[in-house]
Amino acid sequence: MPRYKLTLEYDGGPFVGWQRQDVGRSVQEAIETGIARFAGETVVVHGAGRTDAGVHALGQVAHLDLSRDWPADTVRDALNAHLRPDPIAILRAEMVDVEFHARFSARKRHYLYRINDRRSPLALDHGRVWHVTQKLDAGAMHRAAQALVGRHDFTTFRAAGCQAKSPDKTLDRLDVSREADEIAVRASARSFLHHQVRSMVGTLKKVGEGRWLEGAVGDALAARDRDRCGPVAPAHGLYLVAVDY
Amino acid sequence: MPRYKLTLEYDGGPFVGWQRQDVGRSVQEAIETGIARFAGETVVVHGAGRTDAGVHALGQVAHLDLSRDWPADTVRDALNAHLRPDPIAILRAEMVDVEFHARFSARKRHYLYRINDRRSPLALDHGRVWHVTQKLDAGAMHRAAQALVGRHDFTTFRAAGCQAKSPDKTLDRLDVSREADEIAVRASARSFLHHQVRSMVGTLKKVGEGRWLEGAVGDALAARDRDRCGPVAPAHGLYLVAVDY
Repeated sequence: MPRYKLTLEYDGGPFVGWQRQDVGRSVQEAIETGIARFAGETVVVHGAGRTDAGVHALGQVAHLDLSRDWPADTVRDALNAHLRPDPIAILRAEMVDVEFHARFSARKRHYLYRINDRRSPLALDHGRVWHVTQKLDAGAMHRAAQALVGRHDFTTFRAAGCQAKSPDKTLDRLDVSREADEIAVRASARSFLHHQVRSMVGTLKKVGEGRWLEGAVGDALAARDRDRCGPVAPAHGLYLVAVDY
Repeated sequence: MPRYKLTLEYDGGPFVGWQRQDVGRSVQEAIETGIARFAGETVVVHGAGRTDAGVHALGQVAHLDLSRDWPADTVRDALNAHLRPDPIAILRAEMVDVEFHARFSARKRHYLYRINDRRSPLALDHGRVWHVTQKLDAGAMHRAAQALVGRHDFTTFRAAGCQAKSPDKTLDRLDVSREADEIAVRASARSFLHHQVRSMVGTLKKVGEGRWLEGAVGDALAARDRDRCGPVAPAHGLYLVAVDY
């Protein structure tokens, strides 16, 4: 049974998230339905990151097994045809070794969080960027973020329902930069806790507004207390950019 | 009567274009309705560029007169509030001299046309970029485009219904560049004929595909014959970027 690795882009807006759920349409279900239509097989598609409702992907990775040996480009093109008009695009399909697992083989995940702090509404980026109306100090946010880089107990930045066995994670990168009115937060790690990126971004926003001192972020981390987290940033500013193997 | 200059961004998708029409909702009408709601006045809003249905703006400019002397920031904020949920954002409002006219005072207009030539559909840029499925040679397109720069009779690249008195225009810039899968065509001129940018882009695409020789674009221009124009590129890839005064 050949195994295929898919790299995909999607607009998270219309979906209940990556993972199949009883209520509402998920990205996983849309792809599984597409596979069933073109290959006539009922498969389970495994994703590298279980993105939440509204979270977008520029480079989500998934894998699936098919009983027939289709050329990888045929899988990509047929799946794209059957996914219409859902805003999901299969960027690449590759045949991979059966040892490959989209979730468990991943060495690093890269996320981008987009914030715009201009006064006017976003006519073109609505639903794609978190629009805040108070000007943020991106330099202060970046400096404060460095306290989170490294191996830590991230209990403060973990959703109540997170199913990870341990709150210990190694954050490799948390960079905040500005270009005109847009602030980009880039986070990389082998894996993240549930809501970790959005929790960190919501907390850093407090620093950007000047409501929290830069050092308060490290203090909140050290407290290992969910109540010390800032408000979780909304889903629609978050993008799963790439997964390394 | 104070005159206000507005700089605005919009998603052209839901509108019949800039100009008020009998059928369908225009950007002009949306703004005039917003003014009526906040200031209680019936005004005419004059735009610098009469963008067609589906054409977007990053920096359209318009002007209007109000009988009351509102602070410019109040005009901006109140209009933005009344424009919701239309995808139109007033980026700036400034009080200007009554000599200022958005259309007639304009010295230069800048347009961007976005093309993506990747094989997969566009999940995130759908409706914002012209998606073509054949790879284009952006270098050849750029070289061919240079034949159009300068003062010429642009009859070949002019819509049948164009109301300009003369087909003579001076094109200051027509640059084609690529970044990954996206090709940007940047055009600047004091003014353009109706459909001129989209006609030039559709013609350059023929060169990019290798169906036309680079020199054929200059030949088509010299022919001053609408039948020598390539197919007009779709509206949804075009952006009015800025207007200089």
